This record gives sequence, structure tokens and C-alpha cells, in this order.
Amino acid sequence: MKDKLMKMLEDRKKEMIEIRRYLHENPELSFEEENTSKYIEEFYKGKDVEVQTNVGGGHGLIVTITGGKPGKTIGLRADFDALPIFEETDVPFKSNKPGVMHACAHDGHTAYLMILADCLIQLKDEIPGKIKIIHQPAEEVPPGGAIGMIKSGLLDDLDHIFGIHLLPLGPAGVVGYNSGYVFPGRAYFKLKVQGTGGHGSSPHLANDAIVAASHFVTAIQTVVSRRLNPFDMGVITIGSFDGKGTFNVIKDSVVLEGDVRAMTDETRELIEQEIRRIAKGIEQEFDVTCELTYTPDYPPLYNDPEVTEMVAGFLKNANDKEITEVREFPKMSPSEDFAHYAKKFPACFFYICCTPKGVEKPYFNHHPKFDIDEDALLVAAKAVGQVVCGYYKID
Amino acid sequence: MKDKLMKMLEDRKKEMIEIRRYLHENPELSFEEENTSKYIEEFYKGKDVEVQTNVGGGHGLIVTITGGKPGKTIGLRADFDALPIFEETDVPFKSNKPGVMHACAHDGHTAYLMILADCLIQLKDEIPGKIKIIHQPAEEVPPGGAIGMIKSGLLDDLDHIFGIHLLPLGPAGVVGYNSGYVFPGRAYFKLKVQGTGGHGSSPHLANDAIVAASHFVTAIQTVVSRRLNPFDMGVITIGSFDGKGTFNVIKDSVVLEGDVRAMTDETRELIEQEIRRIAKGIEQEFDVTCELTYTPDYPPLYNDPEVTEMVAGFLKNANDKEITEVREFPKMSPSEDFAHYAKKFPACFFYICCTPKGVEKPYFNHHPKFDIDEDALLVAAKAVGQVVCGYYKID
Amino acid sequence: MKDKLMKMLEDRKKEMIEIRRYLHENPELSFEEENTSKYIEEFYKGKDVEVQTNVGGGHGLIVTITGGKPGKTIGLRADFDALPIFEETDVPFKSNKPGVMHACAHDGHTAYLMILADCLIQLKDEIPGKIKIIHQPAEEVPPGGAIGMIKSGLLDDLDHIFGIHLLPLGPAGVVGYNSGYVFPGRAYFKLKVQGTGGHGSSPHLANDAIVAASHFVTAIQTVVSRRLNPFDMGVITIGSFDGKGTFNVIKDSVVLEGDVRAMTDETRELIEQEIRRIAKGIEQEFDVTCELTYTPDYPPLYNDPEVTEMVAGFLKNANDKEITEVREFPKMSPSEDFAHYAKKFPACFFYICCTPKGVEKPYFNHHPKFDIDEDALLVAAKAVGQVVCGYYKID
Amino acid sequence: MKDKLMKMLEDRKKEMIEIRRYLHENPELSFEEENTSKYIEEFYKGKDVEVQTNVGGGHGLIVTITGGKPGKTIGLRADFDALPIFEETDVPFKSNKPGVMHACAHDGHTAYLMILADCLIQLKDEIPGKIKIIHQPAEEVPPGGAIGMIKSGLLDDLDHIFGIHLLPLGPAGVVGYNSGYVFPGRAYFKLKVQGTGGHGSSPHLANDAIVAASHFVTAIQTVVSRRLNPFDMGVITIGSFDGKGTFNVIKDSVVLEGDVRAMTDETRELIEQEIRRIAKGIEQEFDVTCELTYTPDYPPLYNDPEVTEMVAGFLKNANDKEITEVREFPKMSPSEDFAHYAKKFPACFFYICCTPKGVEKPYFNHHPKFDIDEDALLVAAKAVGQVVCGYYKID
Repeated sequence: MKDKLMKMLEDRKKEMIEIRRYLHENPELSFEEENTSKYIEEFYKGKDVEVQTNVGGGHGLIVTITGGKPGKTIGLRADFDALPIFEETDVPFKSNKPGVMHACAHDGHTAYLMILADCLIQLKDEIPGKIKIIHQPAEEVPPGGAIGMIKSGLLDDLDHIFGIHLLPLGPAGVVGYNSGYVFPGRAYFKLKVQGTGGHGSSPHLANDAIVAASHFVTAIQTVVSRRLNPFDMGVITIGSFDGKGTFNVIKDSVVLEGDVRAMTDETRELIEQEIRRIAKGIEQEFDVTCELTYTPDYPPLYNDPEVTEMVAGFLKNANDKEITEVREFPKMSPSEDFAHYAKKFPACFFYICCTPKGVEKPYFNHHPKFDIDEDALLVAAKAVGQVVCGYYKID
Repeated sequence: MKDKLMKMLEDRKKEMIEIRRYLHENPELSFEEENTSKYIEEFYKGKDVEVQTNVGGGHGLIVTITGGKPGKTIGLRADFDALPIFEETDVPFKSNKPGVMHACAHDGHTAYLMILADCLIQLKDEIPGKIKIIHQPAEEVPPGGAIGMIKSGLLDDLDHIFGIHLLPLGPAGVVGYNSGYVFPGRAYFKLKVQGTGGHGSSPHLANDAIVAASHFVTAIQTVVSRRLNPFDMGVITIGSFDGKGTFNVIKDSVVLEGDVRAMTDETRELIEQEIRRIAKGIEQEFDVTCELTYTPDYPPLYNDPEVTEMVAGFLKNANDKEITEVREFPKMSPSEDFAHYAKKFPACFFYICCTPKGVEKPYFNHHPKFDIDEDALLVAAKAVGQVVCGYYKID
Repeated sequence: MKDKLMKMLEDRKKEMIEIRRYLHENPELSFEEENTSKYIEEFYKGKDVEVQTNVGGGHGLIVTITGGKPGKTIGLRADFDALPIFEETDVPFKSNKPGVMHACAHDGHTAYLMILADCLIQLKDEIPGKIKIIHQPAEEVPPGGAIGMIKSGLLDDLDHIFGIHLLPLGPAGVVGYNSGYVFPGRAYFKLKVQGTGGHGSSPHLANDAIVAASHFVTAIQTVVSRRLNPFDMGVITIGSFDGKGTFNVIKDSVVLEGDVRAMTDETRELIEQEIRRIAKGIEQEFDVTCELTYTPDYPPLYNDPEVTEMVAGFLKNANDKEITEVREFPKMSPSEDFAHYAKKFPACFFYICCTPKGVEKPYFNHHPKFDIDEDALLVAAKAVGQVVCGYYKID
Repeated sequence: MKDKLMKMLEDRKKEMIEIRRYLHENPELSFEEENTSKYIEEFYKGKDVEVQTNVGGGHGLIVTITGGKPGKTIGLRADFDALPIFEETDVPFKSNKPGVMHACAHDGHTAYLMILADCLIQLKDEIPGKIKIIHQPAEEVPPGGAIGMIKSGLLDDLDHIFGIHLLPLGPAGVVGYNSGYVFPGRAYFKLKVQGTGGHGSSPHLANDAIVAASHFVTAIQTVVSRRLNPFDMGVITIGSFDGKGTFNVIKDSVVLEGDVRAMTDETRELIEQEIRRIAKGIEQEFDVTCELTYTPDYPPLYNDPEVTEMVAGFLKNANDKEITEVREFPKMSPSEDFAHYAKKFPACFFYICCTPKGVEKPYFNHHPKFDIDEDALLVAAKAVGQVVCGYYKID
């Protein structure tokens, strides 16, 4: 069956590209993917497969392919939301919605998976188990779409789950993987430092919130520099210090907003605890009030080492002219809500390279000029297909 | 003549109040006092006196009263601009221009001086010298109106200059004075800290302007705490820290705006030098660019000790039922552009108390509910009249 | 009697100098002035006066001169301890005790007062009141000798108290005074920051006391820069940061020692409260323990304005060839335990200039090369004599 | 030959233990290992092998075993210096030199290698290549003994080099390895901040070195928190802040000493550059002088991935009852001067576990109670023997 599947995928490469282009031209923001969802639903209409829509109360779909024989259940996940970015490419299928763009390749993820799913549906009698195709909305915006998919209960029976990301880290054909924690978890925090305003010439009658908040910023640096294990990854960025005022009026309050990244839950919790402590310390030290909200969102993404080794093995032995290289990749710094699945099920999330041909320094995901080599769609489909075949020991 | 002058002033108390109320109802912002200027000009029309308008290219007027005998030349200065404040009083002559208010008593300054000037014009034959009545615009907004008045050259022949401020520091009848530096000088500065933006999860690829600027804020505290003579007065307030951004994007640049106060030119220069030094240090330390503009505006106001002693003597010996108490006042924290005159001519700037009757905690100048006891207008007129008589040794 | 007194003092100028030189050659440290105390006691032996020794359990003496007529009681105070300094002058009467030196002119204070006291004893029948000569030990070292003198109860009946200090701020003949708070009060504090030691490569297993203490140092700057009235004087110096350790071992604890100065009790209390607050804040912020001891010692020295005006008046009208100039001096930055008396009794502490003849930049008090013009001893005796005569209205 | 070698090693286990105990009882500090060196030299006397002593001008020895056939040349390295620690164990062979202790297991390293070398000498005819036994002194103290060994030129012909460390990270039998950068490199720095001393009450006449140095400490935190790639390991510890002084005297200068760790040369160089930058910034910011010496010592230790994979392969396939488990270990935080060899030759440095039997929480290396399970000596000898046999393809 494996060879048949690969052949089918090759034959439908053009279709994958068409789907991807359609989605690219018609992007929808996270949590607003109504038309995309309908488009996907339409695709599966009339196919011999169970389709659940509005999964988790949102725009998600789950397509369940029940194999001809009993066996394990796996999930294959692709996300389909776009970003609030003004596209700056010159492609003919450029976004028709100014300010919204598929700049993170979710169009490609969805395109390859639809075709792969369709092929698997056709071959399902040979599959000893059940495959759940997970079309997930809202990956880009916390709390993310994965939570809803999981909470639906429809995935409770998964044994394993797999997903990929298109990344311009090499030419189409290169597949990357890494084991353990591979993407950091994330948290958002907001700190309002409330002092007392007053005349710039009389600091003793006021209580300067800018000074207190600046001490918070300098103190917070010690969390990464002194509280974390130097072998652990952790970042605290204060991206916003909203203290605009009048030069000669002592500022009464200031709002900071920050972003936390950590490669393990433990580190993320340690950082939270330290930020809370420092905020309390600043309150005491400067006699101000610190109102802190701290919202963890995506957890660190954990690739199960055994599952990853298995996946890497399947890919290395794929012996497919499209999959030209399979190698370990470094850890990544963005966050990804596939992490929610990976926390619940043994998982492997891996990378399909897609640097456009002839480009030396490609624009990275989220850039207004981001683009992909569409050959990578077939690589993605084949790579995931190989994993499915390997998993079910289908030759 | 002194008794005559005092009598004349008493008789015109009502008129002073009317003028003040008219001005109060028709306030104009600094550098926009067109109608106020015309109103004053109108007042002097037909009087036996030389009037110069549009002095220094602005709305200022100088009224020169040439006495009957030769002698010294003095200036008497009152300012006439209003503030961008929404009046919140219930007076019947409340500002008819929403958002503009005579909240610093310049209406009163101008009212008393117009009447005093008129009386002096009538008595001028007895005056052994020349008196220049200085109606100055734009005291509230740097660079201030005083500079233009001085640059006109029309005041070059002054031997001494006097001015007063109405302040609610006691009941009408109390006159205050102080010698040496009495109001601080001021400077404005703006610092743009330019780093490099980037993704919140990758600090090493960016250069965080918020962190650098926060270190500037903490470092700048050492200027007052460690570089100034502890017996000197100096303040640095950073009233604005404009670093609003997106929580997970490293901020590329930040703009700080600050206010400096100092009681001597030396201290103000020392502070400037230290701020410049620290900005340079931050540049080096954090590899950012610091663009600093530092604009000294009003200098510290220096009351010549001999002149002040003379003025205090005249007032203490006034023996006038209106002037109930004359005493030394503490230094003040606001700034005042009379300082420019006082830098060029031996000067005394003193205080006429005006706390409304029956009020225990009066609203201070610049408050939307600021009000005065109008009895203080006569006190002002008489006090300055006493100084004029004393100065010219007129009994 | 005044002329007689002045004549007597002139006649005994040489004796004053001899006493001063004897004391200079035989200095004793604070609280160890056994021989000095005996020397003074010896001086009064056989004189018609009451002498109390070991006052307050220390080396202090009080010599009570009861006048011939009833009247008010005043105190005249001189201190007599020396400093732990290696003398570097070339005077023939250089300290014979290496490492101990009369470098603050207390030798001179005691010398002039012994002779003045002797003269007053001889003239006591003409004095309408009681004069207590206060020979005080241990001015230099907190808690200071003044407290013991006061606690003895022997001064409870004082109506006023006077004292002087020899200072090289002008030639002998110049007398200075100032009113209100003239010398700052002082406090000492010690802060132990206790973290957890550890290996330099594993900060997360330790808790770095050096980092926490450095944040304390930077935060404490905001007390002077932002919490004090800019017109008030206040200083916080951390003179010792004892954090010596091994470069690659995280320091477990650090001890800071600091010095506080303030011109009023209110400011001194405000500073204490703020230091306590910041120490608590650092505890919370860095999860360390902050053990703070804060010891106020000398209060600010308050010269009663009326008393000072009276003293200045007496001196200005002295009409004495030795007292060549009497003028207001600025505030001083050292502290002085005369402040304890001044807190209890209306007081005036003033300055007798003593710059050595021909010296342009004299060494200041506490310098190993400090020296005085001995002519200033007679000036001191006469000035205080004038005050006594003026006070008792003795012509 | 492999089986023969393993058998020989088993037979001489007791001897290894005796050597180890002798060395343990007679420890010598780094660069002072005169007797240890002689003891090792004595051991090789009369054996059919070339021995070079005083290698690199120090106490090092190189024992060259020339095999019976031509082939590659490898180095096997063991260090033999002890630490300045007072031993607190109760072993019968406790250090006879108070304050000096083999607390890092170098006694064991040397013991196993001497016996292994002797066995290899006996079997040398079967070895197709040359083996250099490197007995290295002074591993513990920078610049370390490795540099001298390399500079001697005697190792220039090495093709590969191997070394091990005894670590209580598991029971005897467990062998650990890791690839790439496995131990951080290190640097030492010393910063003298020179300000100007002065009286605690007059900060404006001085320039407080404690304040400037505290700002250095807070600023330096941003190097790790903001300048390093969050996935890279880097530590800056300031272990000494020598600012002891007198509480009321402004400190003129302060000396900081610090320790830097980094997992790559690039990171270590980046940290150096940033520390230099910040020191320059502090100079400018606080008008002080910063004298910085920065001394990189041990580089990061790089295990060549191919060599490490090869070594791990040999060990995993050893099929030896003594070698019970072979697994990947995490990165370590101490530094190790084997790194100098590994920078020059493809290398693998791996770990032999030695937790004493029955101990759950063993004392780690450098602890005064550090001890080993002596069974680990045979494991070490066998493991390195396996690598030799594997390397030369000797069955």
C-alpha cells in the first residue's frame, strides 16, 4: 500500500498546490475562519468518511478514517488560520483581504493534509486502525484552537499524534526533527504599577511610578541571569512600557506588558513565581501598588523521544526521491499550540523545509514577504504518509 | 506724595477688581494674548505717557512714565497670560473660554499694575526718575515672554526691577519676601533611546530599548543623590517614558521626557553635564543610540540681597493698615520667567498673599478651582507703591 | 565689669595658649580622657567654685559659678577629647601619643573656657545669675559625651546654653553664626543581606547576595532623589560594601554600612523609614534576609533664632579690636553632639575662625596637618565673654 | 587480544585500588606534584616503554607505547593533582597532608591508567599503532597542566585522544557520554572601579565607587538575560565585591572578581565583549575609571560527535559484565582542561560512575567528604581498554 499511497500523492501534487493557493488568497484570522472551515467541509462531502464540524464550539473539523482492521488510533493535525499582516509578496494568489495573510504556511499545512486524508480514505481498508484528521483553527492567538479540539472529547482515544510545520530552513526535500522539548512554552503578563502623581518639582509629595517600574525592569533581568539553570532556556521580554506623560508631571501609573518563554513547565512556573515575587518586592520597596496578571498560554512542546526516534527512523528509511535529507534540527524559539496535544498524547511534531528555490536568505514565517517552495507540499504529504505506513507497519 | 498715592489707590480699588474680573472672564493662552494686549493698550490711550506695543515682536507693552526730575530708572512688571485649564470655580466672571483660565493670578497682577501706573502717571511730576511699566505676555510657556521684552532693548536703561506674585499663602495683607535664589531655574530634556526591535523570544537578535532606558532612569537618580551638594536644591523628574509596544515584540526605541529644577545656575549646569554623561554612558553600556536634547529655559530667580533688604525695609515701615504683616518666606519650588530680568538687573520679586477669606486650605495656583481674595489687589498696588516711594525717597 | 573681663582675658592670653599646647601634646581618645579630666580638675582646685567630676559616669566636669545676685542660669560648653589620627604637623608641642591627635581644636575650646571660667569666678559677685562651665568629654564618638552630661540632671536648671567651634574659615577675629538648623543630624546603619552560597556555575542552586545588595544600593538612591523635599538636606552614604569572596563562588552574605545626614529630625526619620522599607522590599524581591540595624546618634543642631539673633547682636556691638568681623555663615555638613543640649535648652552654637596666618588653603578639622592660629583663643574667650555680659546686661 | 586484556585488568583490580589509596594518602597540590610524578615514573621503571618526564617544564609524564605494527596514534589522559581541601572522610587511607585532598578522583584516574598502560605494554606487539599515556599534572588550577603537555610538542602526532572522569552520578558499572560541547569554558575577570574618596556627608566632593560598582553588577545581568541566545548556556558570577570601608567615608575604589562560563567559544567571546562594553559604559556614566582584566582559561570541552558515537558504540557492544549500562548524560556545569586537547585533536571525554554502594545522595566531587566506589576503577580500565581495542579493531 505504501508505494500506492506515494504514487497517489505524486499524482495529486498539483491539486495540493491549488488548494494552498486558494487558501492563501482567502485568508481568515484566528477564531474567524468561517469560510475556510466550510471550504474544508465541502472537500470531504460525499467521501466515505465521518466528518465532525464546529468541534469544540469553534471552526474545527475532525475527519475520522476508520480502517479496515482494528488497531491503534492516531491523529494527524494541520492548522488553518492566518495572521493580521499586510501581504507584501507579488504572488498571483496574493491575499484578497488586505491586512490578513497566510504568512505562517498554515495554508500549506491544510492543503497537504486534505489530499493525504483523501488518499488514506481511499486506501482505508488496508489500514489496521483509525486515523483522525484534525483540521484545527486559531493556532496563532492564545488560548489557541487546540484546547477546544481536545476539550471536545473527540480525541480522547488517540494513541499518538503527529504534526508538521513548513519552515524555510532548507530546500524542499529536507525534513528535520528533534526530541524532547522542542518549542518553548509561553506566558503573557501585565503589570500595572500605581504610584501617586504630582508636580515635577515636588517629588516628595508624589510617588514616581516610572522610577518604580524602571527598577522592576532592571530587577527582572536577574530571573534569567541568576534564578534559572544555565542549561535551561528561558526568556522574559517586557515589550511594552506604557508610561507616556507630561515631562514635568510625576507619572502616577505605568503599565508594563511582557512575554515569557520557557522550554519546560518547571522553568515556566519558576519564572512566574519569580515575577510575582519581584512585583511584591517593588510594591514594598517603592510603596506602590503592583497589579499583576500572569497568563500562561501554550505549554512547551514535548516530542516524545521514543516516538520521535520512530518517526526519524521511518523517514530515514523512506527511500523516496522527494525526501532528500532527514536530520536533527536545533530547538526553536517560537511557541506552537500543538504542545497541548503533545502534553496529552505521545507526539512528534517535525519540520518540512520549504525555502523557495534560488533564495539564499528567505523571509521567515510571519514576515509580510514570507513565501514557500510549493514542492514542499508533496514532501509534507509523503513524509506524513511514510509515518502512517511505518506506524501501521504497512509496506 | 506717598499719602496721596495711597489714597488714590484706595479710591480705585473697585476699578482694579473690575479690570481683574474682565481679564479673568476673557483669558488668553501664552503667546496668543492679542485681545488682552489691545485691552491694556486701550487703557493707556489718552494718558500722558509713552506706550510701546508689540514689544519684542510679541504682545508685550512697555509704558514709560518719565518723572518731573531726572533720576534712576526702574521697571515694574506684571504678566498677563492664562493657562490651558478648564475652570471649575463658580465665580460670576468665570472664564468664557472653556479650557483657558487665569489660574495663576496674572489677571490680578495686571489689574493692580494698570491702576498703579495710572496713579503714578498723574503724580509723575513729583517722581525724580523714570518708571517703566512692563506688561509682559507668555510667562507660563518656555521660552517665556520676558526674553522678548529684554531683547527689545527698551529696558536696557533699568537700574532696578520689581515684580510681585499673588499667592494663597496667607490672608490679604500679608506680604512675603526672600533673598538670594528664591525660585528654581528649569530645564527640559528629551532622550530618545534607539535600540533594535525583534521577536520577544530572541533577545540576542535585537537590542532592547526598554531595558536600556530603565537603566537610564535608575542611573539618573544618582545625580541628585550623589553629585549635588546636599545643601543645594535640585530635582530631575522623568515625567514621560513612552515605551508602549506589543508585549512579545522587543521594543526598538523609547522616548523619555524630563524636567530639571535647580536653585542656582551652577547646579543646573552640573545637572545638565551629568545627564549628558549618563546618556553617553548608557549608549556605550547597552550599545544603543541616545539622542538627547536639553533645553534650559527659566534661570533660577535671584533676588538681590541688598535690594530685597531695601524692599523689606520699605514695607516693614509702610505703616499702612492694608499691609498687616511683612515677613520672610521660604524658597518656592515653581519656576518664574521674571528670573530673566533678575539676571540682568538687580531685582526683587515678592509675594502678596491672597487666600480667600474663610478658606483654610486654599486651592493653589494652577488648580482649576484657584481663586483669590480681591482685597489683595489693593495690597499689591500699595506695596509696590511703597517700594516706588521708598526707592525715590518720596515721602 | 565687661571691660574688666576683657582686660583680664587679654592678660591671660599666653596662659590659654600654654594650656592648649599642653592638651595638644597630651591628647586622649573619646571616653578615655582620664588625664585630661584630672588636669582640668586640678586647674580649678582651690578656686572659689563648686566642681563636679565624673559627671554622668564619665570623665565630664561641671563647674558652677554662682553669681552674687540671683538670676538666670546659663551653660558654657567646651569638649576635650581627641581623635585617632597620626599627627603630621611640625609644631613643637606635637602629640606625644602616636595615633592620637587633637585635630578638631577641642584643645583650644577647653583652653579658652578654663581661662574665661577663672576670670568669671573672680568677677562672680557682679553676675546676676549662675554660670555652669561644662567640660564635656567624648564629642567625637557616638553616642557622644553630651548625653551623659544631660542625663546627670545637673544641667536641668539651664535657661540657655552656648558653645563655640574653632574652624579655619577665616582669619582669627572673624566670628560666624547661623540660625535654625545649622549642623545635620546623623545616623548609622548596618545591613546584612543573607542569601545562599554556591558554585559560580550554578546560580539557580544558590542565591546571590552581591546581586541583591547591589540592587539595594541602586534603590536607596531614590530616597534622596525622590522622597525628600528638594529644599531639605539629606545624605545617605554607603561607605562599606563588604562582599569580598572567591571569584567563582556565589557569595552567601554581604554586609553594608552606611551613614545618614539630615538637617531636621523629620527628614532623618523619613530616611530611616524609607531605608527600612527598601530593605524589606529587597528581602521580598530577591528572597534574601535583610538584617538592618539603624542607630540615630547626634540630632540636627538647632540654633534658636531668637537666641542667635541676640548673640549676633552682642557680638556685632562688641566694639572690641579682637573681634574684627561678625557675619552669617552657611550651614555646615559635619555633625556635632552639642545638638543634644540644643534640643533641650534654647541654644546658640557659633564659630570662631582660626585659619593660621599666611595660609591660604588651611587644612580642615580632622586632617593630620590641621592647625590653628592661637590668636583665635583670645577671640573665643572674648566672644563668649561678650555673650555672658550681654546676657546678664552687665556693662 | 581484547579478552586477554580484560582478563589481565580483572586480575590487577586490587593493584589499581592500592595505587589509588597510596595516591589518596599522599596528595599534592596543582603544580606541586613532585612526589606523585616520581611515584609514577618509578612505576614504569624497567618496563619496555619510552617515558618522558618533566614534560612541558612541569611534572607531567608521557609514556609512549609503540605497537608491533604501524598505525594511528592515540592519547589516553589522566590527571593527578589534588585540591586545597581538608579531608573529612573516615577512610583508613585519608590524606596525610592536612588541607590537601584528592577530592576530585584524580587518584583513581591515575591508578586505573597506570595498570591499563602496563597491560597494554605487555600486549603491545598486537597493537597496530602508537598509544601515548598522558599523566598530566595541574588540572585544577588555571592555566592548567594540559597547555604545557601540548606545548611540549610531544603530542603533535596524535590522531585522537580519550579521557574519562569518575563522577558519582550512578553506581559503578554505568558509563555516560555526551556529544558536542559538554563542559563549559571558563574565564576569570577582575574589575577595579576607581572613584574618589571623601567625607560621607559631602558626596559632591567625592565620587562613590560603591554606587558605580553596584550599577555595574545590575547592568551585567543583562548580558545573560538579553544578549545571549536563550538556547545557549552562559553564566556570569561576581563572586567578590571587595568594598569594605568605613561607614561614613565615601569609598574611593572597589574591586570585583567574577567567573564566566559558556558552552561555546562564541558565547564566551560574546560575554567578554559585553563585559568590556559595560565596564566602558560605567566609566562614562559615573566618571570613574574601570580597570578590567579578563582572562579566558579553559575552553568549552568539545566531544567530537563522530568520535563520541564511535566510543559509545564500542562501549554499548562491549558485552562485559562490569560495564552494566551505557547512556547519554546531560551537559555538565564545571570546567575541565581536557578541553585544550579536545580543541586540537578529535576527542571523547566520558564519564565513569562511582557512587559508593549503599549511598543514596553521594557527596559530589570537591566536597570534603567525597568518596568513590573503588569498583569503578576496573570499570574505567575496561571501558578505556574497550575503546582502545575497538579503535584498533582488535578482537
